[in-house]
Amino acid sequence: MKLFNKVVIIGTGLIGGSLGLDLRKRHLAGQVIGLSRKKENANLAKKSGAIDSVGSSLGVVKDADLVILAVPVDVIMDLAAKIAGKLKKDCVVIDVGSSKERIVSKLSGLIPNFLGCHPLAGSEKRGAANLGADIFSGSVCVVTPTPKTNKKILKKIKLLWQKLGATVVVLTAKKHDCILASTSHLPHAVAFSLIGSIPDPYLGLSSGGLRDATRIAASNANLWSQIFLSNRRNLLTALSSFQIRLDALRLALKNKNQKLLTKILASAEKKRKKLG
Amino acid sequence: MKLFNKVVIIGTGLIGGSLGLDLRKRHLAGQVIGLSRKKENANLAKKSGAIDSVGSSLGVVKDADLVILAVPVDVIMDLAAKIAGKLKKDCVVIDVGSSKERIVSKLSGLIPNFLGCHPLAGSEKRGAANLGADIFSGSVCVVTPTPKTNKKILKKIKLLWQKLGATVVVLTAKKHDCILASTSHLPHAVAFSLIGSIPDPYLGLSSGGLRDATRIAASNANLWSQIFLSNRRNLLTALSSFQIRLDALRLALKNKNQKLLTKILASAEKKRKKLG
Repeated sequence: MKLFNKVVIIGTGLIGGSLGLDLRKRHLAGQVIGLSRKKENANLAKKSGAIDSVGSSLGVVKDADLVILAVPVDVIMDLAAKIAGKLKKDCVVIDVGSSKERIVSKLSGLIPNFLGCHPLAGSEKRGAANLGADIFSGSVCVVTPTPKTNKKILKKIKLLWQKLGATVVVLTAKKHDCILASTSHLPHAVAFSLIGSIPDPYLGLSSGGLRDATRIAASNANLWSQIFLSNRRNLLTALSSFQIRLDALRLALKNKNQKLLTKILASAEKKRKKLG
Repeated sequence: MKLFNKVVIIGTGLIGGSLGLDLRKRHLAGQVIGLSRKKENANLAKKSGAIDSVGSSLGVVKDADLVILAVPVDVIMDLAAKIAGKLKKDCVVIDVGSSKERIVSKLSGLIPNFLGCHPLAGSEKRGAANLGADIFSGSVCVVTPTPKTNKKILKKIKLLWQKLGATVVVLTAKKHDCILASTSHLPHAVAFSLIGSIPDPYLGLSSGGLRDATRIAASNANLWSQIFLSNRRNLLTALSSFQIRLDALRLALKNKNQKLLTKILASAEKKRKKLG
């Protein structure tokens, strides 16, 4: 079932490219055109079957029915101003950025039919070389409408994600950023700090525990510094909550308070087991 | 090739049970007898083929050629005093505890042929229900002899781990504990604190990143409070190193210093990628 005729994906990395693959495979788009700052990435996406053709310039958005912004947060902000004047009136624009408040606030003002989206299906492995079909299947996608969002467009974009196998959760951009600061941005900040603190010569004596706990620290530094800064206040709050827990554990350890230490760990163990 | 005739494994959980499976599968032992505080665990281990028979009491160690202590750190310390007087003169005793200095210091005094071991092959999944063959294959096992350790026994135990597919690293107990505080105990402390700090209602909006980063927080609280306390000073030092990194990241974020923040993340990203 075709949902959109001409779809333009700007940014053919892991998320953008995988979206293209799925749109084409499921016949949800008439044609999918991809653009990338690095031409070789777009060419690679075409070779992988993620897009039908490579766009030559941003001008290609002019008769698009759906534009997907799948680039880092700062680039989304820059691009919006560049494409806003080029779009036809009923063109729908979505982004897939990891923070939403700043993006939604700016883009809603520039593009009438903009809807913020955040598919929770990323990976530390970026780029066109790692894209795959069905990465959204079984995942959650948050969409963040504003009171001004056209209800028909919201419905259509929800349907799009559902067709890709995602469960759609509707949140305000503000609520999204508060929650994701805790469940995604904080774990990244902690993982970057954790691996950073381990002396290089010790790395050979680690097991699966360290590898798993720091897997997301192999994520792209440039991408993540933008995400952190775009959700700075919420992340600082989440870091404070984490600090309180860490201090409690450290104090129990320092005081050799085995009973309290075990209680702290048991409460964490129980919560982690809920996560599955 | 039989290395030991009668082997007694005290503690038939993940590590003890998996050791039994491997010893039997590879014909490295004449017979393997298992003991567990909970009789049903030992029975389960027998059913899984991890042991030949279930020992009825600690008295079973009296004619053992190898005793393997595969119980939590505090229990290892308690058991040593209970079995020391029962062993025959040339019986070799090893443990598989996650910290070594306290254990080696105490057990070396009580048992002449004791050698501390730490196979880096654990998992947050404990117990006889999760044991598996070949979990040591491709892993690292640290052995921690003292200047008094009999060289023949060291050689034989190294061979034992090598026969199970592990690479053996020889370290002093002190060095082991310093390194593992950083590469294993710290990641556990951080993971417990991380999951502890995330509000329950937010857990539904998390992706693979949080799950991976906190997987080891599903580890047993009682086991890990013992490990933390048995390596308290080193872990407090490792926590301080982590705190320095975390504070640096937080300060760069607070000051909106994108250049510094990216530099911190890039250095972590590079180190994590080395880990593979």
